[in-house]
Amino acid sequence: MAREGIDVLLASSPENVAYLAGVSPPSQRTVRSRHSIAVIPSEGATHQIVIRLEVGVVEKRTTADKLRIYDEFVDDPVLIAADVVEEIGAVESSIGVETSHLPARDLQRLQERLPKARLVPVDELLSETRMTKTPEEIDVIRRIGSVAEAAARTAVAEATVGTTERAIGNRITELYTDGGGDQLTMLVVGAGERSAEPNAPPTARVIEAGDLMRLDVIGTMNNYYSDVARTAIAGDPTDEQQKIWNLLVDIRDRAIEMLRPGVLTSDVYRLYAELMDGAGLPKYHFLGHGLGVTLHEEPFLSGIHDVRLEETMVMCVEPLCLIPGRFGLQVEDEVLITNDGCEPLTDGREMLRVGGGS
Amino acid sequence: MAREGIDVLLASSPENVAYLAGVSPPSQRTVRSRHSIAVIPSEGATHQIVIRLEVGVVEKRTTADKLRIYDEFVDDPVLIAADVVEEIGAVESSIGVETSHLPARDLQRLQERLPKARLVPVDELLSETRMTKTPEEIDVIRRIGSVAEAAARTAVAEATVGTTERAIGNRITELYTDGGGDQLTMLVVGAGERSAEPNAPPTARVIEAGDLMRLDVIGTMNNYYSDVARTAIAGDPTDEQQKIWNLLVDIRDRAIEMLRPGVLTSDVYRLYAELMDGAGLPKYHFLGHGLGVTLHEEPFLSGIHDVRLEETMVMCVEPLCLIPGRFGLQVEDEVLITNDGCEPLTDGREMLRVGGGS
Repeated sequence: MAREGIDVLLASSPENVAYLAGVSPPSQRTVRSRHSIAVIPSEGATHQIVIRLEVGVVEKRTTADKLRIYDEFVDDPVLIAADVVEEIGAVESSIGVETSHLPARDLQRLQERLPKARLVPVDELLSETRMTKTPEEIDVIRRIGSVAEAAARTAVAEATVGTTERAIGNRITELYTDGGGDQLTMLVVGAGERSAEPNAPPTARVIEAGDLMRLDVIGTMNNYYSDVARTAIAGDPTDEQQKIWNLLVDIRDRAIEMLRPGVLTSDVYRLYAELMDGAGLPKYHFLGHGLGVTLHEEPFLSGIHDVRLEETMVMCVEPLCLIPGRFGLQVEDEVLITNDGCEPLTDGREMLRVGGGS
Repeated sequence: MAREGIDVLLASSPENVAYLAGVSPPSQRTVRSRHSIAVIPSEGATHQIVIRLEVGVVEKRTTADKLRIYDEFVDDPVLIAADVVEEIGAVESSIGVETSHLPARDLQRLQERLPKARLVPVDELLSETRMTKTPEEIDVIRRIGSVAEAAARTAVAEATVGTTERAIGNRITELYTDGGGDQLTMLVVGAGERSAEPNAPPTARVIEAGDLMRLDVIGTMNNYYSDVARTAIAGDPTDEQQKIWNLLVDIRDRAIEMLRPGVLTSDVYRLYAELMDGAGLPKYHFLGHGLGVTLHEEPFLSGIHDVRLEETMVMCVEPLCLIPGRFGLQVEDEVLITNDGCEPLTDGREMLRVGGGS
């Protein structure tokens, strides 16, 4: 904040409120007008603006020094944040706001209420700050990543030809929450030609012999995401499918071999792009992304992002091949960047088999 | 739009994109930067701006005449919306935008790209338009409301003392998706003292003899929400609990008796407020709300909203009594306003019993 000349930071997105105040109230994500705002001055007490009906939940987990409560329909949480700014004597200061989240109307109200304040976008500052993780963050990501991985594996092993995508999805949901996950945010279970759809939710489609199935287990524990994708087969893959799978696993292994502090993200993407192009296969527009309080965050392993990796970043590496109308394969693992390389947190190198075994 | 002098409408929120273009791409809700925008001119072809990776999903369900595709990281969907505005010759017109959704940065970019356009907030216009429902909308809400109601009833009947909140939640999830629901957005299963928490997600807590349990089944089918809350008991309620329950059901019945075209929303709230005050019980800040492509929408049954009900509105009526640290009870039913009264779409007048029976 000092480097950017920010005197007070007003975080408003669920992810940055969770990051800076420890908890995003449950209804912040379901009802857009129910803002929660973390008010973080460069010095002094921090505040969290919270809707009255969720004070009980928030006060158990907040890391803010003080709560400021508002009543829905009666108070404007943005103006209450402005009150706090006034109380700490910062009305003429530089105030960091999330312009990629805060609705235009709220920014306008804030500026009208604090006419002498300089409102400064802090989206990139927060995004950069969040790229590297603390040991506590890594611990949560590690735990929920393992839960996601085990849930996919178990649900596929328990399934048979004739099981529906939905039954597999429901079993994953059960295992995920039993394992400590809060809830699944987006679950992909696509069999047969649906494995080629980018974000296929589970449906009543039945697993048939010979089906490929693609799964992606995306959810949260204590604000932190899991993002683990797996490919499964009912029976045996065709030679074509096996060949593509071997290539994806090879890309996964070679990318992980590259991942270490100092490596440029675009170089990791180029490995994937060149190998897919060389095989005449369609490629995705990125190979991976950072993981944390959001599902997709900096740094991205894409051809147009040039970020140098650093120790304690957590990356998803997800070589993907979708052949529309036919089938799709993907392996996605979570990887922690260490001081001299990386540590995979999950291991998807084996194609899962419906009914178990290998 | 004509009445408000709007030449082109740019809808950007998931709910209004779904409302005006038939489908919100799945990742619009999970990755905030993946905007989808519905461009609706007062005359002529409509457009939907869609991320390339979800074109396949969107083109099956969109009601827009044309899709405009963008590449993530490369294109700015807001600027592509501006391109469409330019192509239809509307650069100097009045353009409706959702200032309560569109992030400040995007509104600024849009204004910079279309300096001669007049950007006009249309949040209230859209909110008002959505208050009354078409027969197709009512049909979807009716179907998923019944599914939510049956899921809660069945899961409670199958549970016993010793079942965890989470097992009940997982069973509701299964029944909800089997019944045609896309997914649960927020599920409340709170037993014992947790029944008094406003939005308690299911946990490992075990149902004990004598526990009250509060459930709220919130999810979607084809963009439209269900919102059905139930109270269950393991064994028999205490006299105090039974008395509160009887009062809540009485309020539910009397509110439903009031609901008809022309009635003022604040008058319906007053019924609840006075009866709860009279009984010396804590009341909530609203008694209900509209239901549609968002969970909470206009009109609200609160003391400070004065909207006159109209035919085809769908309302949730949810008398609630939370006694922190002890227990909470609630009945929430969905109700359709008809030409001369209303039709309850669900019926929660009976307290559910763990293990079934009555």
